[in-house]
Amino acid sequence: MPNVAVYGAGSWGSALAVLLANAGHQVALIGRHPDEMELMNKHRENSRYLPGVALPLGLLPTTDLALLNADLVVFSVPSHSVRQAACLVRPYLRPGCIVVNTAKGLEEQTHLRLSEVLTEELPQNPIAVLSGPSHAEEVGRDMPTTVVVASDVGTAAIVQDLMMTPKFRVYTNPDVVGVELGGALKNVIALCTGIAEGLGFGDNTKAALMTRGLAEIARLGVALGGHPLTFAGLSGVGDLIVTCTSQHSRNRRAGVALGQGKPLETVLKEVGMVVEGVKAARVAYQLSVEKDISMPITQQAYKVLFEGADPKEAVADLMMRGKRHELEEVVEMSWLK
Amino acid sequence: MPNVAVYGAGSWGSALAVLLANAGHQVALIGRHPDEMELMNKHRENSRYLPGVALPLGLLPTTDLALLNADLVVFSVPSHSVRQAACLVRPYLRPGCIVVNTAKGLEEQTHLRLSEVLTEELPQNPIAVLSGPSHAEEVGRDMPTTVVVASDVGTAAIVQDLMMTPKFRVYTNPDVVGVELGGALKNVIALCTGIAEGLGFGDNTKAALMTRGLAEIARLGVALGGHPLTFAGLSGVGDLIVTCTSQHSRNRRAGVALGQGKPLETVLKEVGMVVEGVKAARVAYQLSVEKDISMPITQQAYKVLFEGADPKEAVADLMMRGKRHELEEVVEMSWLK
Repeated sequence: MPNVAVYGAGSWGSALAVLLANAGHQVALIGRHPDEMELMNKHRENSRYLPGVALPLGLLPTTDLALLNADLVVFSVPSHSVRQAACLVRPYLRPGCIVVNTAKGLEEQTHLRLSEVLTEELPQNPIAVLSGPSHAEEVGRDMPTTVVVASDVGTAAIVQDLMMTPKFRVYTNPDVVGVELGGALKNVIALCTGIAEGLGFGDNTKAALMTRGLAEIARLGVALGGHPLTFAGLSGVGDLIVTCTSQHSRNRRAGVALGQGKPLETVLKEVGMVVEGVKAARVAYQLSVEKDISMPITQQAYKVLFEGADPKEAVADLMMRGKRHELEEVVEMSWLK
Repeated sequence: MPNVAVYGAGSWGSALAVLLANAGHQVALIGRHPDEMELMNKHRENSRYLPGVALPLGLLPTTDLALLNADLVVFSVPSHSVRQAACLVRPYLRPGCIVVNTAKGLEEQTHLRLSEVLTEELPQNPIAVLSGPSHAEEVGRDMPTTVVVASDVGTAAIVQDLMMTPKFRVYTNPDVVGVELGGALKNVIALCTGIAEGLGFGDNTKAALMTRGLAEIARLGVALGGHPLTFAGLSGVGDLIVTCTSQHSRNRRAGVALGQGKPLETVLKEVGMVVEGVKAARVAYQLSVEKDISMPITQQAYKVLFEGADPKEAVADLMMRGKRHELEEVVEMSWLK
């Protein structure tokens, strides 16, 4: 009987299953397509989503939901599928079994964080959130990686104990709101740095967007109950750096294409996979209006994505704002005052 | 008569002189070598340090120290030359003229910040500090760039007024300590991310070093009187991102060579220019011991640079530390408690 189940056999789910199996756990990697899971079992490789990484002995690729009856369940599905997936797995979960969510986003219709969605659908299970700068390809190759687990102190410590290895360093943080918002909103900024790149701007501009983007994420995050320093941590600046600078990032790639003048529908077709930042930009913009938070970068992203604004003018607008004090906005918003 | 003088005609001094002249100021760019400055004047280009950027009409390349008699003086010399340069220019400065320092580092013998050095040597002049993610090459090409000026509120506002343009956005911050330490200490972390790169590690590892590096810079910075949120700003995370990810960064390049196993002396010879991070690592390590601040990354950098430690083992040591709570150390250290 496996003691850990990973639900969702994409690149991140597979990489975490490999990590957990290498750490000595018996792991069920649960996917939806019997043929894919069979092939994976036969070749001992997820050749579609995590090519080149051998599946360890303790990892069982399967479609059998009964194997969700484990000590720990890791959730790795796209953010828009989280609620549906939760309903689907509910009958198989042991009450009290910790569910670790790894998807990053906000529910579009409700603006809920994904841990809130999971708590609604799985009221008998403690929920933890895993976030931080962690490309699946690199975790699969055992590159040194750090992540953060957010939950109540006891739950987070259990997850830390189960997942930490010499190459995968797990920090805990009780600030679920901050960790979750950092992970979701950095995708919006990655879109924007991609746009700047597509326009031909350089490292200074990208660093400016990342830094000021982080400041506005923190403003919204603090207004929604997050701790300002969380946004300076692994799920804030750490994840932001990886997403904005990596060749692997879909959000960044989509942004580059937008900056080159392609329309959104074309870009989404070209990328061919979920671009979480597009939906996150809409939700973040709506939240900023609702809460009356200044988010100039998100606002410009919204205009470019959904109102046909010219990206070049969007950047000019950002640079021409009134003179500012670097700390005033964060300090005004926060409980530091 | 020029109203602005830039002392130091390297790449950053030249780029700032171009920026200021394009903004409508009469600018004297003061260098040490008559032949170089003459060539610069003849070709209207600093072909050695800022090739491809035309010098505007309002910019006068010169060696005439009498032109330091200006409304604003920008200082752009390597950090180890700041004290000597201050002594040299002292007789020419108008009392009350603001001096903006752009060098990033700490004085090796005294551990003083460079604004403290300048205040000692130029007691009659208000000192401001300019920092943030700003490659000279990109500022010279008018790429959108954001920086921060730290000084007392009045002085910072004057500098902001004089330097801000539609492509060069200047924020103010009264936290001189934080802005200065952010600029100086990020070079240490850039060395470390370079080392990780030289060892063959990926984006996850680099992001981990940058994020946790930022946390330890903030710990030391707060202990020395800086504001924790400054390290999440342009002179903290912004400058860190640019220095750790850019091909232009000497600190990063030196780190890569160290990670590939080359000895320090060879590396310094190869880079052929000042690598600020090497000296900063020594000072930061000594300060962390003196103030009893946990700085594991800086400590490992010190061991690799000055005690012949194996970089690979240094990374392993970092990953194998005890389990941590992400916020505890920062929170413990700060005035937030």
